[in-house]
Amino acid sequence: MPRFAYVNGRYLPHDEAAVHIEDRGFQFADGVYEVATIVGGRFADLEGHLARLERSLRELRMPWPVKPASLRLIMRELAARNGVRDGLVYVQVTRGVAPRDFRFPADAVPTLVLTCRRSRFQTARQLAEGVSVITIPDIRWLRRDIKTVGLLAQSLGKQKAAEAGAYEAWQVDPDGTVTEGCSSNAWIVTADGTLVTRPASNLILNGITRLSLLRIARDLGIPVEERPFTVAEAHAAREALMSSAGSFALPVTRIDGQPVGEGRPGPLTLRLRAAYLADVGAPDPVGRV
Amino acid sequence: MPRFAYVNGRYLPHDEAAVHIEDRGFQFADGVYEVATIVGGRFADLEGHLARLERSLRELRMPWPVKPASLRLIMRELAARNGVRDGLVYVQVTRGVAPRDFRFPADAVPTLVLTCRRSRFQTARQLAEGVSVITIPDIRWLRRDIKTVGLLAQSLGKQKAAEAGAYEAWQVDPDGTVTEGCSSNAWIVTADGTLVTRPASNLILNGITRLSLLRIARDLGIPVEERPFTVAEAHAAREALMSSAGSFALPVTRIDGQPVGEGRPGPLTLRLRAAYLADVGAPDPVGRV
Repeated sequence: MPRFAYVNGRYLPHDEAAVHIEDRGFQFADGVYEVATIVGGRFADLEGHLARLERSLRELRMPWPVKPASLRLIMRELAARNGVRDGLVYVQVTRGVAPRDFRFPADAVPTLVLTCRRSRFQTARQLAEGVSVITIPDIRWLRRDIKTVGLLAQSLGKQKAAEAGAYEAWQVDPDGTVTEGCSSNAWIVTADGTLVTRPASNLILNGITRLSLLRIARDLGIPVEERPFTVAEAHAAREALMSSAGSFALPVTRIDGQPVGEGRPGPLTLRLRAAYLADVGAPDPVGRV
Repeated sequence: MPRFAYVNGRYLPHDEAAVHIEDRGFQFADGVYEVATIVGGRFADLEGHLARLERSLRELRMPWPVKPASLRLIMRELAARNGVRDGLVYVQVTRGVAPRDFRFPADAVPTLVLTCRRSRFQTARQLAEGVSVITIPDIRWLRRDIKTVGLLAQSLGKQKAAEAGAYEAWQVDPDGTVTEGCSSNAWIVTADGTLVTRPASNLILNGITRLSLLRIARDLGIPVEERPFTVAEAHAAREALMSSAGSFALPVTRIDGQPVGEGRPGPLTLRLRAAYLADVGAPDPVGRV
């Protein structure tokens, strides 16, 4: 099946999809994005992703490239053209093409790019055994709440994790608290069974899956605290987990080589994952895809 | 005269020059760049720019897209094809095109893009009166020594400056010291005639023009200190200036609306500018172009 992308009003063969070299996304990282997950043919948290895209655009004073309702249709159409029932739709909006100048162009037309691909999300083994994370200093800028394409620090962090045989890197601020993973939010379950994750601020991206998990946990009567936690607390935690659009809630069973709790996926993590996927309305894709 | 750009081995009409939407420069700001100035037909500090590009590539573990000698030829050829004798050659290298993944691709071919355009650099009035700067918090990441295309903070800063009627924004770290401008280095001349600029570290980009000005100032016997300075010191300075490939040494005569010294371009600044352009081997383009 040929693969299609979308660029500024046109569905194109993926290999032919291009943007101008003076697109501000290419020269200034002056763009924002979302990744929405399709599980069993259903978009997960689509409205949440569109709401966050709206916030990112507003914070950077970029207009919508098309109306939100149109973007929703384009996302569905692209998934259909690519025959994707389990995978990811990637949406990027930039300030557009303009002669290179740091200042905002007066009359640029925003660029809208979408790609779509199948994904296995995780392997059965990753879910059965949990994944490992390393910790690294958080060297990013101070507007981490905007989902921009300025992702080089995160790329360097994930590369470092991969070279250490880990799945993700948790970034740590100078005060010793974990901010978040390079492409996921970070959580622990304390000895008394409280689910802890950092509160939303300029220091983290407010994950859409994070927000859904908080809502679901409260609905299930699980004690929840939104507060920073240290690496030491994470090492001493009963469970640890990460969340993102593509990982849902995923057990973290090793941090910097040390097992978390008994080194096995925790029951609360697995309960949250199941509840999240039930909320989406799809069975867990791992083991099914 | 038609305008040409260069993309991965080909000279193309500027408007047709494009990169794939999965270029890592577009999706991850996983790319570095240089801007080299041509004054009166001569490249200024070309070897310095190539040396810094090499450092940027090395820090990010990217290969040269072509040999440095070839890049030098491409830069000259592009300037010639565009008929530019006063202007800028922009060179960008990214890690290349790969399916979207934070981790480095195993086999990506780096992308090489060049553009070229005429520039007036500054107006005669800007040089005669000096320019104004505002000060803003430095919110950037902690690897500012690598010249990456992750320039959104700088873009926001320059936009804020423009909206305040200023030419540049000087970024200030939490300790109250000026790091640098959004696309230039920051300098002052103290009451006793010492030229002061921040030392190179991970907190600033080590400007090529900055390095040349330091060398020239020492050759001229001007007292030089490489140390951080505060905004208060800048307000109390006898002179202030900025430096970059396109601004050479440019007088800064207002900071946050307050005049620096007597509010006129300072003699040491103008002496440095003249000496820099003499070093390049070209007359000052302002007033000539």
